[in-house]
Amino acid sequence: MRLGPSPGDTGRFVGAWSDLAGVGRDHLRGGYSRHAFDDAEMQLRDWFTEQATRRGLDVETDRNGNLWAWWGEPAPGAVVTGSHLDSVPGGGAFDGPLGVVSALLAVDELRLRGLTPARPIALACFAEEEGGRFGLPCLGSRLLTGAVDADHVRRLHDADGVSVADAARRIGLDPAGLGPDPARLATVGTMVELHIEQGRLLRAVDPAAVVGVASEIVAHGRWRLTVTGQGNHAGTTAPADRADPMIPAAAAVLAARRVLATHPGAVATVGRITPVPGGTNVIASSVSLWLDVRHTDATVTAAVVDAIVADVRAEAAAEGCTVMVQRESMSDRVTFDPGLGLELSGRLGAPVVPTAAGHDAGVFAAHVPTAMLFVRNPSGVSHAPDEHADAADCVAGVRALADVLETLVGDINPAAGHLGAGDE
Amino acid sequence: MRLGPSPGDTGRFVGAWSDLAGVGRDHLRGGYSRHAFDDAEMQLRDWFTEQATRRGLDVETDRNGNLWAWWGEPAPGAVVTGSHLDSVPGGGAFDGPLGVVSALLAVDELRLRGLTPARPIALACFAEEEGGRFGLPCLGSRLLTGAVDADHVRRLHDADGVSVADAARRIGLDPAGLGPDPARLATVGTMVELHIEQGRLLRAVDPAAVVGVASEIVAHGRWRLTVTGQGNHAGTTAPADRADPMIPAAAAVLAARRVLATHPGAVATVGRITPVPGGTNVIASSVSLWLDVRHTDATVTAAVVDAIVADVRAEAAAEGCTVMVQRESMSDRVTFDPGLGLELSGRLGAPVVPTAAGHDAGVFAAHVPTAMLFVRNPSGVSHAPDEHADAADCVAGVRALADVLETLVGDINPAAGHLGAGDE
Repeated sequence: MRLGPSPGDTGRFVGAWSDLAGVGRDHLRGGYSRHAFDDAEMQLRDWFTEQATRRGLDVETDRNGNLWAWWGEPAPGAVVTGSHLDSVPGGGAFDGPLGVVSALLAVDELRLRGLTPARPIALACFAEEEGGRFGLPCLGSRLLTGAVDADHVRRLHDADGVSVADAARRIGLDPAGLGPDPARLATVGTMVELHIEQGRLLRAVDPAAVVGVASEIVAHGRWRLTVTGQGNHAGTTAPADRADPMIPAAAAVLAARRVLATHPGAVATVGRITPVPGGTNVIASSVSLWLDVRHTDATVTAAVVDAIVADVRAEAAAEGCTVMVQRESMSDRVTFDPGLGLELSGRLGAPVVPTAAGHDAGVFAAHVPTAMLFVRNPSGVSHAPDEHADAADCVAGVRALADVLETLVGDINPAAGHLGAGDE
Repeated sequence: MRLGPSPGDTGRFVGAWSDLAGVGRDHLRGGYSRHAFDDAEMQLRDWFTEQATRRGLDVETDRNGNLWAWWGEPAPGAVVTGSHLDSVPGGGAFDGPLGVVSALLAVDELRLRGLTPARPIALACFAEEEGGRFGLPCLGSRLLTGAVDADHVRRLHDADGVSVADAARRIGLDPAGLGPDPARLATVGTMVELHIEQGRLLRAVDPAAVVGVASEIVAHGRWRLTVTGQGNHAGTTAPADRADPMIPAAAAVLAARRVLATHPGAVATVGRITPVPGGTNVIASSVSLWLDVRHTDATVTAAVVDAIVADVRAEAAAEGCTVMVQRESMSDRVTFDPGLGLELSGRLGAPVVPTAAGHDAGVFAAHVPTAMLFVRNPSGVSHAPDEHADAADCVAGVRALADVLETLVGDINPAAGHLGAGDE
């Protein structure tokens, strides 16, 4: 269906990619910190809007702060592609932006091929995918699809005490409008998200594969454990007189590792822990820690959490502390549309692999046929400054995405297609 | 030597104390956060200057940012009393300010008694006693006495990256002037610091005692452990592929408790821990934690640290992580002047107790006869919002401090003394 890659492809990718390189660098943690509606993310949104507008697409912000750029009139049956612009704190450059940049370049590629889409294509940037600011991942797609209660979301706040409602207001959104958007959801016919692979399953399945197709997202969730004891002086409080919440909190970290031995295939992580007040010469009065647990089977995920919490409660009782557990989010296992996955896998010659990372595509999968493409990641590292995909592989990802979009939208005039391809 | 307490004493204390109640409250952690040279501490410094000036004392800031208020001309042989105005993050109201307020009220008390001091009295507020901002406790007194290298101090920085040099400059100090101040030290004949008791040793020795005299400060120090691993995605990184620095860090917290069983009388605490980047869905790339260790004998303190570090290194090796250990401060055991302590204990009828908390008085004890008075603390809690001393006990502390100062300075005209006492 298409001509071979042109020598200009890599240059186009590198050129577009370099626009993002300086935005939101985190000089303390390394990598990037771009959080929903902060200066860095707003700068990337402006960049996306400019890039889409330059391509003649109509850009709009929906009631939940997601960006949409339309090639063709918005209408039911649209093929949607895109990803997110936010990062984890100190994250890599690729997780999120690669799907957005690839969507823009896939539009260019389709135009070079001379395609006139038979149905609309929309490029989307979803808000707060990482949950790095307000704690709830896939916030924009969950709100849009009604997967989360809007009143609950409006009250969530960031580390500085700014609520979602206030943050929305500051970028010109009406907080009252946050919530289900069935009219918009009705326009989405098919959803395809391209993403850097996280981990190295693709390589394990096929060492030569550059692009893969996702089969499923395993069940995953986040739990916040708050251990409360008695703040006191680190020097003058005898061990027997202590109710130090750091002790059960440390036990939680070790339990999260130990419990995996009896739950094969599960992962559990504590990457965030905050003692209050957090002074060197002060026994903490309370410690909050966040537990991230994942397994294909949601009942195993729950069992892992239960086992860790039971350990922490026992340690807390022995230390004279109390424990409060809050589930911040929970996503059941998502199986992407198997027919669509097989079709794309065949079309691209790409292997099918599962992932343990959450994505907006996983939220949409409950409503419309959804697929994901993964671009290989040589080290497998993600959510870290070292996250990396080679430019040549990213170009292959753009081509694969263009192939998928072409397959899904159809051409109103197939005979006229492909005139422009390879002409630079 | 003095008349009984007047009914106005408690009112005077409560009145002075209430001036400080609203300054530097920490609405996130509870209690107070007043750190060296920040807005709250500068407000308290202004308050001290105004209070001292109103009493006819001459106030000056020394080259290290310590405040001095003189009753009489500065000259060798002065009796110095005071404490500090800064707090730990989310600390109590009493740790520091009680010694400053008591010093001001003791001056009032001595004047009511009609005393004309035979040698100068100085009221002092020392900078950054808690080390809550730059990490090195007793910064002001250590610089003054030459107990720490000034070049090292100038380069220390706070959590926002502001160096001591920059912070000093902002309040009008010349950073080049930080360092030993032998001329000032030469004026200090005797040093007495009043402080709320931290812990409840006073009660254990004498259940009726309101005021105690310190015998010693146990050896204590702070060590920063930095564990470095590989940042990665919390969902997609298999347990076997992880180098998660949270695991050895948690082991450090538990080792700090476990090791105490074989080192009686020692305490070890982790009250501060910072994973980088600190995302919920991110395996940390590194974790810093601070270890506070104390024991009467500095060799035991060192042995406790060594045992904990050995545990952490073993856990780190097993996890594929590395460990870096930095000693941020170390204070050997301080024995206060035994003759002076016995004299004051006899004079006040107050028991003698040791403490595991560091103080500026401990820094001065290496240079001049030094004593400390403790005011009882019913719960023993300190470095926490619950820290509390009853107003009546604080008044008893002021009287005890006045008695001590009267004893130490002498009256140039003893026959004329005590005319004003009890006249309100």
